[in-house]
Amino acid sequence: MMANREEIRLCGYGGQGIILAGHIIGQAASIFEHKHATYIRDYGPEARGGTCRADVVISDEEVIYPYISASSVLVAMSQQAYDKYHVENLEDALVVIDEDLVKPVADKHRVLAIPARRIAEELGGVMVANIVMLGFLTAVTDIASANSMKKSLLAAVPKGTEELNMEAFEKGYVYGLEQTGSAKDTKA
Amino acid sequence: MMANREEIRLCGYGGQGIILAGHIIGQAASIFEHKHATYIRDYGPEARGGTCRADVVISDEEVIYPYISASSVLVAMSQQAYDKYHVENLEDALVVIDEDLVKPVADKHRVLAIPARRIAEELGGVMVANIVMLGFLTAVTDIASANSMKKSLLAAVPKGTEELNMEAFEKGYVYGLEQTGSAKDTKA
Repeated sequence: MMANREEIRLCGYGGQGIILAGHIIGQAASIFEHKHATYIRDYGPEARGGTCRADVVISDEEVIYPYISASSVLVAMSQQAYDKYHVENLEDALVVIDEDLVKPVADKHRVLAIPARRIAEELGGVMVANIVMLGFLTAVTDIASANSMKKSLLAAVPKGTEELNMEAFEKGYVYGLEQTGSAKDTKA
Repeated sequence: MMANREEIRLCGYGGQGIILAGHIIGQAASIFEHKHATYIRDYGPEARGGTCRADVVISDEEVIYPYISASSVLVAMSQQAYDKYHVENLEDALVVIDEDLVKPVADKHRVLAIPARRIAEELGGVMVANIVMLGFLTAVTDIASANSMKKSLLAAVPKGTEELNMEAFEKGYVYGLEQTGSAKDTKA
C-alpha cells in the first residue's frame, strides 16, 4: 500500500484529539521508521465551522509539498467532516470511520468502520477515542508498525495517561485485526 | 510588529508541549482573529536528536509556503534547540527564552527571558511551562490578543485542566507585561 508518498487526512470536530493523532502518526513514521513526514494544520475557513483537519504526509523522500489535495487514507470522526472530505480522496483511497458518528455514502472507496468512541467510553474515557482509532488504523494499513506507533504514542501522551492510552490503542488494534482477518478468512 | 507575514518558531525538547503551544497560537490567530495560519511539524533528522520544533506562519493572506527559513520570533525552551536555531533568525528577530534552561549568546537579536519552567513548578505542574511561555509571548508580541489566546487555549487543553492552564497563562502574561512595561518606563 505504501508507495512513494502516503497522504493521510484525519478529520472530525475540535476536541476529538485529531491533532494529537496526526502528530503520533508523523512521529511514528519518521522518528521510529526513519521515513520523512510532515504534519500540517492549515487553519482555513473550514476550521471555523467546527470541522477539524490534520494532514500527514509520509514519504521515502523529503516532503517538499506538505499539502494534500486528495488523500490515500481518510479517517473521519464526524459526519460533517466526512461529508466535506470523502469527495476529495484518491481513486483507490481507504476511508476509515467511527461507525456511530459517520454514515457513509455508497461511493467507490473502500470503507472500514469501528465504534471508536463507544469503545473509548467503555474504557472509561471518551477522550481516548482518537487513540482507539489510531490502533485500528495501524491494524488495517501499513502506515507504521504497531511497535513504532506505540513508542510514538508513549512519547506524545501526558504523563499518567500512558496506561489508558495503551489500552485504547490495543482495543482498536485488535478490533482492526479481527475485521481484516475475518475479511481474509471469508475469501479463503 | 505584524507585517504581512509573521514566522514563529517554537523549539525545545520533546515532552515540553511545543506542539500544543504551536497549535494554540495558530488557532488563536486564525479562528479567533481571522488571519491565515499554518502550523507545521517537519519531522526531520533533528527531531531524532531530542530537539523538537514547531513552526507557525501567520499572514494576512493565504499561506502558500508554510516552511520557515528564518523566524521573526523564536521561542527556545532548551539550550540545544536555542543553539541550533538562533542563527537562523531574521535580522530584527525577537528571541524568547526560558532563562533557567537557555544561556543566550551575545548576538544582534533582542532577547526576552522568563523562568517559565520554574513558574510552572510553583503552580504545581512542570507540564504547563509551555502555557506560561505562551502567556509571556502574548504579552511581549502582537501575535494575537490575550483574549484570542485564552479562547484558543481553552479549546485546546484537556477537560479538567482548564483552571491550571489559565493560571499558567496569566502568570506568564503578567510577567511579560511587567518586563516590557518597566523597559518602556526606563526609557521615558
